[in-house]
Amino acid sequence: MAGVLSPSMPVFIVENAAGGNRAFAILNEGLGKVLRFGAYGQEVLDRLRWMNGTLAPALARALSARGPVDLKNLTAQALQMGDECHNRNVAASSLFVRLVAPALVRTSPPEVAATVLEFLEVNNHFYLNLSMAASKATMDAAHGIEGSTVVTAMARNGVEVGVRMSGTGVAWFIAPALVPDGLYFPGYGPADANPDLGDSAITETAGLGGLAMAAAPAIVRFIGGAAEEAMATTKLMYTITLARNNDYGIPALGFAGTPTGIDARRVVDSGVPPVFNTGIAHREAGIGQVGAGIAKAPLACFSGALRELGRRLNVTA
Amino acid sequence: MAGVLSPSMPVFIVENAAGGNRAFAILNEGLGKVLRFGAYGQEVLDRLRWMNGTLAPALARALSARGPVDLKNLTAQALQMGDECHNRNVAASSLFVRLVAPALVRTSPPEVAATVLEFLEVNNHFYLNLSMAASKATMDAAHGIEGSTVVTAMARNGVEVGVRMSGTGVAWFIAPALVPDGLYFPGYGPADANPDLGDSAITETAGLGGLAMAAAPAIVRFIGGAAEEAMATTKLMYTITLARNNDYGIPALGFAGTPTGIDARRVVDSGVPPVFNTGIAHREAGIGQVGAGIAKAPLACFSGALRELGRRLNVTA
Repeated sequence: MAGVLSPSMPVFIVENAAGGNRAFAILNEGLGKVLRFGAYGQEVLDRLRWMNGTLAPALARALSARGPVDLKNLTAQALQMGDECHNRNVAASSLFVRLVAPALVRTSPPEVAATVLEFLEVNNHFYLNLSMAASKATMDAAHGIEGSTVVTAMARNGVEVGVRMSGTGVAWFIAPALVPDGLYFPGYGPADANPDLGDSAITETAGLGGLAMAAAPAIVRFIGGAAEEAMATTKLMYTITLARNNDYGIPALGFAGTPTGIDARRVVDSGVPPVFNTGIAHREAGIGQVGAGIAKAPLACFSGALRELGRRLNVTA
Repeated sequence: MAGVLSPSMPVFIVENAAGGNRAFAILNEGLGKVLRFGAYGQEVLDRLRWMNGTLAPALARALSARGPVDLKNLTAQALQMGDECHNRNVAASSLFVRLVAPALVRTSPPEVAATVLEFLEVNNHFYLNLSMAASKATMDAAHGIEGSTVVTAMARNGVEVGVRMSGTGVAWFIAPALVPDGLYFPGYGPADANPDLGDSAITETAGLGGLAMAAAPAIVRFIGGAAEEAMATTKLMYTITLARNNDYGIPALGFAGTPTGIDARRVVDSGVPPVFNTGIAHREAGIGQVGAGIAKAPLACFSGALRELGRRLNVTA
């Protein structure tokens, strides 16, 4: 992974070293009043200007000096440290800071380095966007295999959920988005919630997030439920996936690999939908994130993908 | 916690905010060829001189500028992130770096800050010594209670193990040290091992380390065993302790608190000794750490303490 700065919008560049393909992600703003959850007040704009003008150039200089960060290694470590790399990223964010801090200090003026380190100190979700881009680069390499029923993307826009499957080309299979079940920040409740929203479900598509919840029992303090449910969720996700990731071991499951390769057939046959660990946005624009919880992918997305594959292969469902 | 610099040997000062008492710890050198495991070659001396002349003053300036670090909060977080804060400290060390980095950058020349951050980047055990001093400050507050059978210190010197109990004053109750059972660094094996050694068992005395192993299932990759054994060890340690620490929750056990307050009576009655997660030193001076594993506290230490308490209280055992 190497940072880059564009004059309009800086993004992280994440490269799949095995496949050569790349994915991109903006830099994470943090929780609460942030643009990606619909807030756009002055503090949001001020933070984005600082991120574009100071944070991104400083990280670009640091990454240029030290070389790319190995995100697979970082994710593997974080999974041993209570992160599932979607809604819990405190370990990965901390490891990232340790890795880039020396080069950051060598390539930025002290006051710039200090303000960057202060921003990173309090943003426990900074790694989320890197996890998303890494997941995207991973799953894109699995896309376009003829006849394959492996799910290669899942995304939500607050109205609908879309699923893409390896063997069905560029088509998205959509169904209405559901409201997450979760915990709310003080002063907010279920009546404030927008239906499930965001492109971060790409982490679940790659076997992280909701699928890797057993690695992150402490996440139930953020999204609700009991630690035992986190274990049970990952075990359930093994039933709808094709493999276990050799490099992403879950300590509490005896280092079993994360559930990897969601198979649309298994989802439809079992009626078990992939689960998303997700933030909850306020239903009104301008307010931002008001909670976090669990949402389920609608089964209709997967049955729709299978019908389309059948049509392409001239198979009657 | 606030750093301080002495001309001869800098130490961390850790204060028990509730009790007002203080404990002290030198700065952690890392693994392998380090003085505390008996190595004393040129690289060891060079590192110690750099730590005394550069690292400690830089941390002292940073801590002076930002104020004390809340070690209880840091330990509580680390226990949710796979550390047991004795032989696994990667999360706590990473969190510590994030907390002090901004002030470090503001109070040291860039090249000094960069070399300090590089040292901290690769030393996953830096937090160990802070965990030890915090444990010492905690347990000292429990010492000197008349009639109490709570264990307030456990330490090993490579020949003997010593145990101190709250109700028996300054006396140490000793028995021969055992050889740890564990994993060895490449090129070394059990024939190289010295009997159990070091003062870091103060962490177990405070309910961390071996007692909190269920918080750190990934530690079995470092000290041996299976993840299930880590869970079983903490459950066993509940049988020889008096309480569970409300602030130190273990996610995988449904946030049950760490086993706290080893009761010498329970140890002797059950025959279950406290377990130490520990490093293994080479039996020959000059080589250093060659592995890590688990050692048990000899039961004779605890029965000896109880006999002495009986004598003081005029009770016949």
